[in-house]
Amino acid sequence: MPTYKLTIEYEGSNFVGWQKQENGISIQSSIEESICNLTKENTNVFGAGRTDSGVHAKGQVAHFNIKKKFSNSTIRDGLNQYLRPKTISILKVESVNKDFHSRFNAKLRHYEYKIINRRSPLTLNKNYAWIVYKKLNINKMKQAAKYFIGKNDYNAFRSINCQSSSSIKTIKNFKVDSKGEEILINVSAKSFLHSQVRIMVGTIVEVGKEKIEPLKIKEIIKNKKRKQAGPTAPAHGLYLLKVDY
Amino acid sequence: MPTYKLTIEYEGSNFVGWQKQENGISIQSSIEESICNLTKENTNVFGAGRTDSGVHAKGQVAHFNIKKKFSNSTIRDGLNQYLRPKTISILKVESVNKDFHSRFNAKLRHYEYKIINRRSPLTLNKNYAWIVYKKLNINKMKQAAKYFIGKNDYNAFRSINCQSSSSIKTIKNFKVDSKGEEILINVSAKSFLHSQVRIMVGTIVEVGKEKIEPLKIKEIIKNKKRKQAGPTAPAHGLYLLKVDY
Repeated sequence: MPTYKLTIEYEGSNFVGWQKQENGISIQSSIEESICNLTKENTNVFGAGRTDSGVHAKGQVAHFNIKKKFSNSTIRDGLNQYLRPKTISILKVESVNKDFHSRFNAKLRHYEYKIINRRSPLTLNKNYAWIVYKKLNINKMKQAAKYFIGKNDYNAFRSINCQSSSSIKTIKNFKVDSKGEEILINVSAKSFLHSQVRIMVGTIVEVGKEKIEPLKIKEIIKNKKRKQAGPTAPAHGLYLLKVDY
Repeated sequence: MPTYKLTIEYEGSNFVGWQKQENGISIQSSIEESICNLTKENTNVFGAGRTDSGVHAKGQVAHFNIKKKFSNSTIRDGLNQYLRPKTISILKVESVNKDFHSRFNAKLRHYEYKIINRRSPLTLNKNYAWIVYKKLNINKMKQAAKYFIGKNDYNAFRSINCQSSSSIKTIKNFKVDSKGEEILINVSAKSFLHSQVRIMVGTIVEVGKEKIEPLKIKEIIKNKKRKQAGPTAPAHGLYLLKVDY
């Protein structure tokens, strides 16, 4: 019973998110359908990150088991053929050990968040970045970023829908870079709370707007109150970049 | 009678191109309408480059004259308000001398062409790059690029619809860069023939596919025959980046 690891890119705008749901088309179900079309087998596809509706991926990872054996390139090209009208692309297929689990074996998840900071509306980046009209203070955002690194109770930075029993997480990297009007925020951790990256981004943008001081981040973490943190940044600026195993 | 210079970004997918046409919505007419909505004056907008349908711009330049005077920021924000549902954004408005002409005064036009070279279909870049599946030889493309620089008769590199009386043009820059799967081609000249950039890109991709040798470019230029050059690269990989005055 071969196990395959997929590396997947998608444009998340027209999906309800990674995970199967009653109310629309998910990335997970689209891939499961394309596997069924290609192999004539029903199977479940497990993803490393359950991205929300509108969130994009440049390197989501998933795995599945089937009975028949196919070459990696047959799976890649076959799934891409069946996925064709949808904005999902299988970048890579690898045959892996049957114990491989995309979600439980993930060592580090890398996300990127894209902000465009300017007065004029977006065109080329309309569904690909968060437009922030007010001029942001990048230096203050960089100062604030370092308080997000480390092992902390991130209860203030999770969605009310978050079902995780513990809100303690270890953020390995939180970096703010800017080039012209574009601001990129890179965040890495073994795992995240629901909406954690987007709430951290929403909060650091409040720092950039000079509504809160960089040092205040420490206090917000300590107080563990969701309402002290900033708003949840829009989904369409977020990219699941890469998952390390 | 004040004259305004506009710097414009647009996502060209849903337009018939820059120029007004009977058969659909153009960028030019959309901007003229928004000026009429804001100022209650009818005017013509003149663009520096008549980009084709599907071609994008990060820095198209245009100008227009009206009778009333408005502040530059009122024009920028007002036009953006009326352009809102469309993928056109006014980045900058400048008051210029009444002799300024976006098309005739342009000293250098800068275009960029984006190729993604990989086996898997595009998602995030679907309307923003040309997907080339066959592995391209970048070194050969770089070698070929230098033959496109200089003053030459580019008759082999213009569309059959090109109405220019002379096909002699001076290419100031033609540069191929690659990073991972992405290839960017930057091309600059005072002016171009119709579809010239796209035909040059289509031809250099034939070099990348090793169908023609780099040195062959010199011969194709010399022979002046359109059919010896490569195909016209798709519009949606092309960006009008910037116009110098």
